[in-house]
Amino acid sequence: MPSPSTNPRQAPRLRRSPPVVAIIGATGAVGRELLGVLERREFPLAELRLYASQRSAGTVLPFRGNDITVAALNDSTFAGVDLALFSAGAKTARQYAPAAVRHGAVVIDNSSAFRMDPAVPLVVPEINPDEIARHSGIIANPNCAAIIALLPLWPLHRRNPIRRAIIATYQAASGAGATAMAELREATRAVLEGRAYPPRVLPHPYAFNLFSHDTPVDPATGYNDEETKVINEARKIFGAPELRIGVTCIRVPVLRAHAMALTIECEHPITADQARAFLSDAPGLRLVDDAERNRFPMPSEATGQDEVLVGRIRQDLSDPSGRSLALFVAGDQLLKGAALNAVQIAERLLP
Amino acid sequence: MPSPSTNPRQAPRLRRSPPVVAIIGATGAVGRELLGVLERREFPLAELRLYASQRSAGTVLPFRGNDITVAALNDSTFAGVDLALFSAGAKTARQYAPAAVRHGAVVIDNSSAFRMDPAVPLVVPEINPDEIARHSGIIANPNCAAIIALLPLWPLHRRNPIRRAIIATYQAASGAGATAMAELREATRAVLEGRAYPPRVLPHPYAFNLFSHDTPVDPATGYNDEETKVINEARKIFGAPELRIGVTCIRVPVLRAHAMALTIECEHPITADQARAFLSDAPGLRLVDDAERNRFPMPSEATGQDEVLVGRIRQDLSDPSGRSLALFVAGDQLLKGAALNAVQIAERLLP
Repeated sequence: MPSPSTNPRQAPRLRRSPPVVAIIGATGAVGRELLGVLERREFPLAELRLYASQRSAGTVLPFRGNDITVAALNDSTFAGVDLALFSAGAKTARQYAPAAVRHGAVVIDNSSAFRMDPAVPLVVPEINPDEIARHSGIIANPNCAAIIALLPLWPLHRRNPIRRAIIATYQAASGAGATAMAELREATRAVLEGRAYPPRVLPHPYAFNLFSHDTPVDPATGYNDEETKVINEARKIFGAPELRIGVTCIRVPVLRAHAMALTIECEHPITADQARAFLSDAPGLRLVDDAERNRFPMPSEATGQDEVLVGRIRQDLSDPSGRSLALFVAGDQLLKGAALNAVQIAERLLP
Repeated sequence: MPSPSTNPRQAPRLRRSPPVVAIIGATGAVGRELLGVLERREFPLAELRLYASQRSAGTVLPFRGNDITVAALNDSTFAGVDLALFSAGAKTARQYAPAAVRHGAVVIDNSSAFRMDPAVPLVVPEINPDEIARHSGIIANPNCAAIIALLPLWPLHRRNPIRRAIIATYQAASGAGATAMAELREATRAVLEGRAYPPRVLPHPYAFNLFSHDTPVDPATGYNDEETKVINEARKIFGAPELRIGVTCIRVPVLRAHAMALTIECEHPITADQARAFLSDAPGLRLVDDAERNRFPMPSEATGQDEVLVGRIRQDLSDPSGRSLALFVAGDQLLKGAALNAVQIAERLLP
């Protein structure tokens, strides 16, 4: 039972260890990864409870050798829960996260619902771990593209502040959920067999095709929601409201790792060798930068990996001042882009 | 028979109309498209002769209702040929193009062999058609990524000079030839059926994956050959040696249309609406820029189209000066990126 003295509004850490953990949205692509990451990282827990929509309730998921039956989410879900990992979309988060907090749980929310709330920390543990301590019950997990773009930029930014970044993304199906991953496979199978496949989950044909990110476009700026998230979340996570970002978010026919081409302008001149040195020992990153063998970050090698791969580090030839670099990165959208980052935050909440 | 007075070193146009046309590399991905484009555009010709390597000789290809048998290329190939369309790689071009010219043919070469030769025009007919007249027997068809990037930039550049461009490409299999297209299909089929598929044509797994362009990387700059071509050819085609370009070339699992995210800085402020007006009536382009319906250029819609699609036109939010724009484009690599551009040049050579 929660005691008044462990109200998370006063205590930044979980009130109890090992905690009772609930996953909200357990049957989704990120939810299933959360189970895997908790198991693999031997996250200490007294009990794991799984929740999903009424439609998915009854699903049985394995965890540490046991079967856990997924229950339907409702207002009494959170009694006795110490840590609630939400991966169920912004609407569900807005509806249920406050109830979880009222019951004394700390919420780590994977949706966009609270990310830009000034009272809510938005955290990539390798970048701004100290933010965690100022939470009032809810901590937001950033957008997947933002995490994967920012992790390799941070070791550069903290030595030589980045003034401008131009980013083009190559985003995987998984960012649109398990049904989009299935659609990519089924649509591709259909094309190879000469059958028609009308798009169901995504707005455009996905087999051997790519398209601008399927979020609404702001008529005022021409930027879509995904791009706006990358810009706003980058500024908040870096604590750099003046950081200038241009970004184009594109969905490519890849299953679960995002890639990105990044061009950055720093405050002072910077060389590719300096950047390589800054990045080579940074947490959460792996340098894959073998020009001789033409081996650079690829989604196929980032898939299933905790590290974000970074390479193709070179002076940007379009800036003669020597202050600009180009890089290419790839990171697992479901791991560092979502589930792993959430669990890394949770680990820092353990008493 | 060629007469001395029609030596192409003196005469910029073909010596005879309708001409005898030879396609060198007729069985390749671009070669087959050349046949299709000549047929569809009713290119006037007295005879069409098809050549390929010894290995592909004997292949029969249909043209205007007739079957043409592909012959093996040799030094006597060019007797009586007025126009030689080369799509057989740089080595073959270097070996045979001079012989074709000696026989009085005009060569349009799709390889990189002569592109940066100051004596050889490098032509996109919508951009620098006047260059054609200064040829001495060889005209170079630009790199496919360069053509598709430059066509939508030209209508902007000639009104408001572009000073800097940052480009990220999403390049299709077709750029690596018909065997790479087959590999993409076969590798994808294997993955969907749970079979292993070791890469054969391309250096990395291609199914549901992407990778940095498979050309050698210059150790001095970190840029690969494809990127270097885009930079150098852009400057030559635009006649703008001072144009600054940063580019990242990525191979994506798409069959035959390249896409690109372009960010440009112009000399003077420019708005998205101005750019849209400049682009809407430019030759060779089609505006696909429907923010409300989230409909923008896609490889699936560029495939088989003569026009390069351009959209997502918006102010680049990373440049507060108002001089920068972002765009997204898609163009058929085998058509405007290769065969169509070559035939458009050829059309301007007709007497």
